[in-house]
Amino acid sequence: MIPDRDVLPTVTMIGGGQLARMTHQASIALGECLRVLAASVADPAAQVSADVVLGSHDDLDDLRRAASGAVALTFDHEGVPLEHLRMLESEGVAVRPPSAALLYAQDKRAMRVKLRELGLPIPDFADLSGDLGLARGRLVEFGERHEWQIVLKAVRGGYDGRGVWIVDGAREALAVFDEQFAAGTDLIAEAKVAMRRELSAMIARSPFGQGGAWPVVETVQRRGQCAVVVAPAPELSDDVAERAQEMALRLASELGVVGVMAMELFETTDGDLLVNELAMRPHNSGHWTMDGAVTSQFEQHLRAVLDYPLGDTAPRAEVTVMANILGAQDAPEMSMDERTHHLMARMPDARIHLYGKGERPDRKIGHVNIVGKPGDDVATVRERAERAAHWMSHAEWTDGWDPHS
Amino acid sequence: MIPDRDVLPTVTMIGGGQLARMTHQASIALGECLRVLAASVADPAAQVSADVVLGSHDDLDDLRRAASGAVALTFDHEGVPLEHLRMLESEGVAVRPPSAALLYAQDKRAMRVKLRELGLPIPDFADLSGDLGLARGRLVEFGERHEWQIVLKAVRGGYDGRGVWIVDGAREALAVFDEQFAAGTDLIAEAKVAMRRELSAMIARSPFGQGGAWPVVETVQRRGQCAVVVAPAPELSDDVAERAQEMALRLASELGVVGVMAMELFETTDGDLLVNELAMRPHNSGHWTMDGAVTSQFEQHLRAVLDYPLGDTAPRAEVTVMANILGAQDAPEMSMDERTHHLMARMPDARIHLYGKGERPDRKIGHVNIVGKPGDDVATVRERAERAAHWMSHAEWTDGWDPHS
Repeated sequence: MIPDRDVLPTVTMIGGGQLARMTHQASIALGECLRVLAASVADPAAQVSADVVLGSHDDLDDLRRAASGAVALTFDHEGVPLEHLRMLESEGVAVRPPSAALLYAQDKRAMRVKLRELGLPIPDFADLSGDLGLARGRLVEFGERHEWQIVLKAVRGGYDGRGVWIVDGAREALAVFDEQFAAGTDLIAEAKVAMRRELSAMIARSPFGQGGAWPVVETVQRRGQCAVVVAPAPELSDDVAERAQEMALRLASELGVVGVMAMELFETTDGDLLVNELAMRPHNSGHWTMDGAVTSQFEQHLRAVLDYPLGDTAPRAEVTVMANILGAQDAPEMSMDERTHHLMARMPDARIHLYGKGERPDRKIGHVNIVGKPGDDVATVRERAERAAHWMSHAEWTDGWDPHS
Repeated sequence: MIPDRDVLPTVTMIGGGQLARMTHQASIALGECLRVLAASVADPAAQVSADVVLGSHDDLDDLRRAASGAVALTFDHEGVPLEHLRMLESEGVAVRPPSAALLYAQDKRAMRVKLRELGLPIPDFADLSGDLGLARGRLVEFGERHEWQIVLKAVRGGYDGRGVWIVDGAREALAVFDEQFAAGTDLIAEAKVAMRRELSAMIARSPFGQGGAWPVVETVQRRGQCAVVVAPAPELSDDVAERAQEMALRLASELGVVGVMAMELFETTDGDLLVNELAMRPHNSGHWTMDGAVTSQFEQHLRAVLDYPLGDTAPRAEVTVMANILGAQDAPEMSMDERTHHLMARMPDARIHLYGKGERPDRKIGHVNIVGKPGDDVATVRERAERAAHWMSHAEWTDGWDPHS
């Protein structure tokens, strides 16, 4: 679309959200401009990229237009219909990750069946598809077996807490099931896990087969979505960290994943690892790499989908903490511009990343990275990152600081 | 220009070169999109920004269109006519740096007169403007006084070695003078300095008056332009480094500079500092900050022109070396894409920055940063950076490495 330029490869990303926005930012250093298929010119990535195709990820012709002339097609979300991707692949488009792999990031049931088949540890689960009576029977049997310590999950389309129901007992479980069944939502039930914490193993894999893993991180969830990431995960034994990285690299290889992949894990109270979810794209648990690792997940994703050699995944500091800036229930009167000003004044080292999104309750509108200095302890760095992000969300300092007092 | 977005301020940069390209990259993290006034959609910054105004930096109406609705107008080069900027200022545009300061970055004679007035050390110089006979007489007098160890410089418009004549004796000096006088080029003559090396003191200043300085770096020039930057400058005493920073901060304050400023300096063989040139914009000697400092010069420039508080200028490592990727005399047969692939394979930690520019001899088309790991010595890091950049320019490994042998 850009004439007369020194031609370096064009990558197309489907979706115009913040992940595409930050991938575009990384593409600039590689001499490229990310092409994005966006629903609107106001989408976070469409606001900043010179190469925007307006259209829908559900429309095959729009996908074809976006893929035309690009060396690879990749994603900022899991919502693209697989049948469209299979068609594009048959037409010669390099879909990365390929549809055969992406299936397992789109379909929570297929993912669990596959992981079990590969011998990777997952929480016990039950398939609630098919005939109403039979599915309901399987739910009751599964619920009783786990004393109703269960979670219901939509097989497709859930993210950031949507499509997950943490139910309290049989009555609520059956009510959710009946309502969702009637709405046509395909469900699974999963056993709740006695967990110490959640971890994420972020890796990348290229078509050549090269793999690279960042340090395993701890993720802190609030209201069903990622709020804070501590990199690397504090007090995680090398043994467990390596096990998590190996599981993720092995799975990516078995599935033929191309690009970055996040494997979200539960660390149980007795030290086991169980796979929770997969994402085959840049992921919130990898945002710390933008400032805290030699190679960011966004550049790495581009390297992988371009089949370039992968970059160094070494951390730049002993600890980096990422905290999401979430839209408040009531947006503060102080403008985002003014909040940014205050945060910069108070924390000159805070790495601010804003997505160009309007403020809505619990919406991810940016994040802050704090890269620890030598000798900083984890708690100090984490408190600063959370304080900074809370300020940006609410225009309130959690330590009660008042510059005018 | 972008509807429905959460409005954060728009900054306009005049010029679509690599400095604007990298400033756009930095603006994305601040929730913004840099607007660029570019001559062509193929310009490095126009290739990647969603907000491009096509036009000329010489045309007042184009400048007005580019400034419309922006909170600040800034520059990726020194070429904008001051009378246009004064007009825009009179119309209420926040020109940053203001025309009254930019004058000293555009006019080498005015800069030297001002520096002398402020008591800042500069090499001896002579003004060669005015009547031909008088000017020629001043040149002869100045040349004889310095035993013809002199350099001629164009007062306006020189960069990257253009507009500078390192002359060998009276005959060549007079020949250059006569030719340039006839062509209408306004000249100064400057005494050659017995120098140990060149340094650059990069600082930022906001309208509020806040100043920030990065560590002073050593710059290595080849064929009249910057080739390598070592940050911080090796074996520079704290005392001299602080003197350089103070000189730059003081000058920025005296002139009312807004944004980043590079003060290029000679360190003489007897340890004195002399000011060589000024640039009031992101500068080649600050590219190392993209990977080697907490806050890059591009983000800092945006913070300054937006009158945000400045970011932390601390280095991230004991040593970072930047090497420019320059177009070769004969562009290699191997494509830039393939060269990038090979460099990534050999140096997974190399930070590559490409500008989307075609290859022409000695043209700056990108740069590589190598951030030293703890314990790395300067020579090792520098050799790696130069080896990487030479590879990208020439498709030749300076250490003779051959993957097939």
